[in-house]
Amino acid sequence: MEIEEKYLITGFSGFVSKHFLDFLNSKNVCAKVLGIDINADIPFDFSTYKTVSCSFVQLNLLDKNKVETIIQEFKPDYVLHLASFSSVAVSWKIPVESFTNNTNIFLNLIESIRTSGIKCRILSIGSSEEYGNSIHNQKPLEESDPINPLSPYAVARVSQEMLSKVYSESYGMDIIMTRSFNHIGTHQKDIFVIPSFVRKINAIKLGGENKLITGDITIVRDFIDVRAVVEAYYLLFKKGKKGEVYNICNGVGTSLQEIITIISKIVDVEIIQETDVNLVRPNDNKIIIGSNKKLIKDTGWKNRYSLQDSLKEIISYYCN
Amino acid sequence: MEIEEKYLITGFSGFVSKHFLDFLNSKNVCAKVLGIDINADIPFDFSTYKTVSCSFVQLNLLDKNKVETIIQEFKPDYVLHLASFSSVAVSWKIPVESFTNNTNIFLNLIESIRTSGIKCRILSIGSSEEYGNSIHNQKPLEESDPINPLSPYAVARVSQEMLSKVYSESYGMDIIMTRSFNHIGTHQKDIFVIPSFVRKINAIKLGGENKLITGDITIVRDFIDVRAVVEAYYLLFKKGKKGEVYNICNGVGTSLQEIITIISKIVDVEIIQETDVNLVRPNDNKIIIGSNKKLIKDTGWKNRYSLQDSLKEIISYYCN
Repeated sequence: MEIEEKYLITGFSGFVSKHFLDFLNSKNVCAKVLGIDINADIPFDFSTYKTVSCSFVQLNLLDKNKVETIIQEFKPDYVLHLASFSSVAVSWKIPVESFTNNTNIFLNLIESIRTSGIKCRILSIGSSEEYGNSIHNQKPLEESDPINPLSPYAVARVSQEMLSKVYSESYGMDIIMTRSFNHIGTHQKDIFVIPSFVRKINAIKLGGENKLITGDITIVRDFIDVRAVVEAYYLLFKKGKKGEVYNICNGVGTSLQEIITIISKIVDVEIIQETDVNLVRPNDNKIIIGSNKKLIKDTGWKNRYSLQDSLKEIISYYCN
Repeated sequence: MEIEEKYLITGFSGFVSKHFLDFLNSKNVCAKVLGIDINADIPFDFSTYKTVSCSFVQLNLLDKNKVETIIQEFKPDYVLHLASFSSVAVSWKIPVESFTNNTNIFLNLIESIRTSGIKCRILSIGSSEEYGNSIHNQKPLEESDPINPLSPYAVARVSQEMLSKVYSESYGMDIIMTRSFNHIGTHQKDIFVIPSFVRKINAIKLGGENKLITGDITIVRDFIDVRAVVEAYYLLFKKGKKGEVYNICNGVGTSLQEIITIISKIVDVEIIQETDVNLVRPNDNKIIIGSNKKLIKDTGWKNRYSLQDSLKEIISYYCN
């Protein structure tokens, strides 16, 4: 009989969590999953997987006593820490809450694991925003490049990574850190840029005014399909090196302008784009492109999804 | 009539605050000071200064509403943010509380100042611990050298510095950051290493067992007299460059072994030192020596106190 793997997933209600479960199931991984989330409502059905048995507990990660109890009772083999206030924009509006719900929740989690004495591998999810503005870089960002956080969100992510390093080095805890670039895929909340564009462009197709009002669309990001992201996370659990940081990215940059063009072509509609200066964020990073060489070298990961394919999937999900 | 300068000092009960007030008074600075502290008890008399008029309010900086009210009512010209859980050892014991009482209190403070719209210069006090282990460095650490925090305390300090940079660059706030090295001087709490050594060595002089039990005394630190530190802070308020980081240090390293030898000579007692491995901190930095060139260049600061003089003063304070 195959040995069951026990996964604790924080931020269970998010779309990355759903895709991670889909991945485990598609690979017939025999897994017991405990999802935790501050929200009571999980917007997908987690009861129908074949090999993945899931349960869910509503929990605020700021409640350290409850986190300790959960860890001690469930005794995870793997902890996928997805919980985060992951919006840069939100971090400018409510920086204190954003910081607390990134760095402090993580510190509660690793302290609870440390004091429990339970041996497990923890994946601490960070962000490409940690690098800051890379406009002067001619080559994709590598993990050894300097970091330069430019928003409260990015500072919180760097703090989380530094804490991971301290806990890994000082206590020998098995923590791997990621700097995950812009995920795209189905089930993402439409406050994020791609679903928002898809919904608006589809509304134009359905007869709305053909004007798309946006923030700065000259910014370039490294977009990666969430299905490729969760495969990378699984491979890091299995093959990643303890205490190391890994970029999770495509390795190619695309401007929001290009994204809009591709979506409009797939949807088959002509649009007029207008920039609203009020939607342009203070001090935003212009270009962020990562190198995925380290991830490939250590885990054998491969990106199986083209941007065109990802966008078709997303359009089909949001518009049907 | 001289214009009155308004200073808000956080962490008012600490010894740096007392020495800062002493400095203002000695220079006949016409100052109105509002001290805030989480503790109700201020262990020095602040009512007798000639040119410095002080008042005190007990306040938890985690209470953002109260912080906002204080800022709006007092309207400071200068904010000296000394409040901190400043012990590396404490940060290993209670990392969550340590982190919250360093980074989160700072974030509350600068958010309150930002939203108030009040123009003031903020001195964000950081630590030499941000640099981490510099054993491979042949020269004193400069502000441009890489940082590598090795404790929860050090991570919190780096976060504070990164947030300062973000707020300075994105909102144009007038924040100056320090990396302050090991302060020594009178009125310091005796949980810190030098007062602790002084008390113990003096107890031996007074007839106790001649054994001094310590942690690792091979570690080398850049010790600087608190009176030189507060003069640097005053000069940074007047001449420092917005958004910049400054080392506050002596520029010379001394091992704890050497400190013990000097104290024993001044006290005139022979001691036997023994190392207790339980007092050796996990992953402690071996050598930390800073360069003070940038501070000197931008402010004209000069260190007027030799280590010998500082230790004599401290011995006289704690042992009479």
